[in-house]
Amino acid sequence: MAEGQVRDLWKEARELGLGISGEVERLESPPSPLVFLRDFVAANKPCIISRAATLHWPAVARSLWSDDSYLCQALDGCDVSVHLTPHGRADSLVPIPPGAPGDAPRGLCFASAFVRTMEFQEALRIIYSTGSPSSPVVAYAQQQNDCFRAEYSALSADVEPHIPWATEALGCLPEAVNLWIGNGRSETSFHKDHYENLYVVVTGEKHFLLLPPTEVHRLYVRSYPAAQYVTSSSSEMGELKLEMVEPKILVPWCSVDPYPPSPEVMADQRTSFPLYFNGPKPFQCTVKAGEILYLPSMWLHHVSQTPDSNGRTIAINYWYDMVFDIKYAYFNFLQSISFSHCTNEPSRMICNSCDVSDLSGDSELESTRKG
Amino acid sequence: MAEGQVRDLWKEARELGLGISGEVERLESPPSPLVFLRDFVAANKPCIISRAATLHWPAVARSLWSDDSYLCQALDGCDVSVHLTPHGRADSLVPIPPGAPGDAPRGLCFASAFVRTMEFQEALRIIYSTGSPSSPVVAYAQQQNDCFRAEYSALSADVEPHIPWATEALGCLPEAVNLWIGNGRSETSFHKDHYENLYVVVTGEKHFLLLPPTEVHRLYVRSYPAAQYVTSSSSEMGELKLEMVEPKILVPWCSVDPYPPSPEVMADQRTSFPLYFNGPKPFQCTVKAGEILYLPSMWLHHVSQTPDSNGRTIAINYWYDMVFDIKYAYFNFLQSISFSHCTNEPSRMICNSCDVSDLSGDSELESTRKG
Repeated sequence: MAEGQVRDLWKEARELGLGISGEVERLESPPSPLVFLRDFVAANKPCIISRAATLHWPAVARSLWSDDSYLCQALDGCDVSVHLTPHGRADSLVPIPPGAPGDAPRGLCFASAFVRTMEFQEALRIIYSTGSPSSPVVAYAQQQNDCFRAEYSALSADVEPHIPWATEALGCLPEAVNLWIGNGRSETSFHKDHYENLYVVVTGEKHFLLLPPTEVHRLYVRSYPAAQYVTSSSSEMGELKLEMVEPKILVPWCSVDPYPPSPEVMADQRTSFPLYFNGPKPFQCTVKAGEILYLPSMWLHHVSQTPDSNGRTIAINYWYDMVFDIKYAYFNFLQSISFSHCTNEPSRMICNSCDVSDLSGDSELESTRKG
Repeated sequence: MAEGQVRDLWKEARELGLGISGEVERLESPPSPLVFLRDFVAANKPCIISRAATLHWPAVARSLWSDDSYLCQALDGCDVSVHLTPHGRADSLVPIPPGAPGDAPRGLCFASAFVRTMEFQEALRIIYSTGSPSSPVVAYAQQQNDCFRAEYSALSADVEPHIPWATEALGCLPEAVNLWIGNGRSETSFHKDHYENLYVVVTGEKHFLLLPPTEVHRLYVRSYPAAQYVTSSSSEMGELKLEMVEPKILVPWCSVDPYPPSPEVMADQRTSFPLYFNGPKPFQCTVKAGEILYLPSMWLHHVSQTPDSNGRTIAINYWYDMVFDIKYAYFNFLQSISFSHCTNEPSRMICNSCDVSDLSGDSELESTRKG
């Protein structure tokens, strides 16, 4: 229906402001609050700020967080939340378990990690040990509920409590500060957040795939039934089992897996999601130790990581409240307009009708989580 | 086609950020650059700043521009541009003159004023004399080509050359500064500008009707053939005659006249343009002497005026370059989506087809001028 117009929007948003190279602009030093607000926040445009922005942080300058003995001593006796999955992908789409009702797009469900609280020292140990491809479980220390200021408050002197130029630009302190400790297998599937995000890698590297909100149709947001990993064993490394959440909950989520595990799955992904695989190249960047990524609100992002020589990646991110302004209203309008042929699901292939209600079944969906 | 979605956008943009009262936010003192940028420019939201912002301007503090002898002495020997029309409405829609080819929406054409250059003293005299309803011509001194810094440079010390907090926020000096001297009959029809506009009334009052860009469908932008007022007489007050521009030029323009001259025309307007007359109330404000209206880029605006006790309204406006960012791309996308039944023109009534190219004939249109 609106395919031509939506494609024009993709093109125009990139050509006018976001850039056509697919690269994220890099700043050598922290921007002034005014420049940050004008050139990036108001423009809803990402940027990476060099290590110069965090060189005064003890965690960066003295590489404190690359030192196990420092971390274990500082967090001695502290309990932290660890997400356990069989594959490293928390909050991702996986096949509905055998025996469960199968009425879902492509037979998939939205699987949340099994979350276990454990002493930090133990968490660090299993993050290392589960980085090996042979491990049947992958551990990722994360909890997107302001966990840095709660579980990791013993480390608060190692970083800044907020990003001063961002705080001044946005006119508020961070709503949440989260810490992330993962190994090379940890991955976050495509989603968006309703926050302005200042994402700082402290050790290791994070790899981002980014799509502007104008390109939301390319990720085929669909409603998937929620499922949850559980373990019957009392050991934290017990085998994980996937259970459907009862009563049924539907979670709108991006359908595309940009890095499928096998050529067969890749072939299926390419056939099913041509708008992603045949469309304009996603923005792509690697954020290195000490660097800050400004990830604008509503941008769709996929995150993977490369560990440091000690086998881990540690990042901290500052979530600032976004303003729900005219850009947000425009985004919701865009999402309410159907893109014909944007899916190969049979029920959506027939679109030679003007009845929008038949076609834009996802208009009210939000592929959102705190993540 | 997309009526429901477009109406939701109108509602959401107002509810989330622009406000539901239809009133323009008033600030008692000039905002800091950061607050102006964050709360108004980035949000694409208008505001009025009180007279406190211009009290240090000689033109405001000493009411210099209310004094004919001051103005005539300062501008002695200066030539200025005066727009002459039969009704006070420069750049507006009027019936195609008899005998001209009549193929146009509603039989209307887009009529530009006859522009005559004359000495300032003479200009001021005819602005006064043509304010009377019996005058067959209305004069409006204006020229939207940076005329203040050219024709009126002798007055430059009476105001500031730019608005400092806006310049700092926007990161550039004004692209153009224009002066407007009119009587009570001068009126500007609905249009939008590709500029961030700081509009200062120096004497008299200006009345604005404002619609956010999200509501562009409500003004029924259509392509009208261009016409021009001309005069055969060598006297500046010779009778004006309307001639179609040859070869034909089409000008996309807003069809709605919010203040039609008679009950019959009002009835026709109401029938023809229900989205305007039955939709949410436009934002409405009066800008008084010394006050500044921030009129955000792409907002649709209609302007009328009440003269001071000397029979004139004088305003100066500062046009700053707008940023063609993601908001602009979203606006163009919105304009490319047809709103079914948004017109009563017979050729547009049939919209039970998915072929957008048949319906959104205005997608590429720009109801824009420097004005």
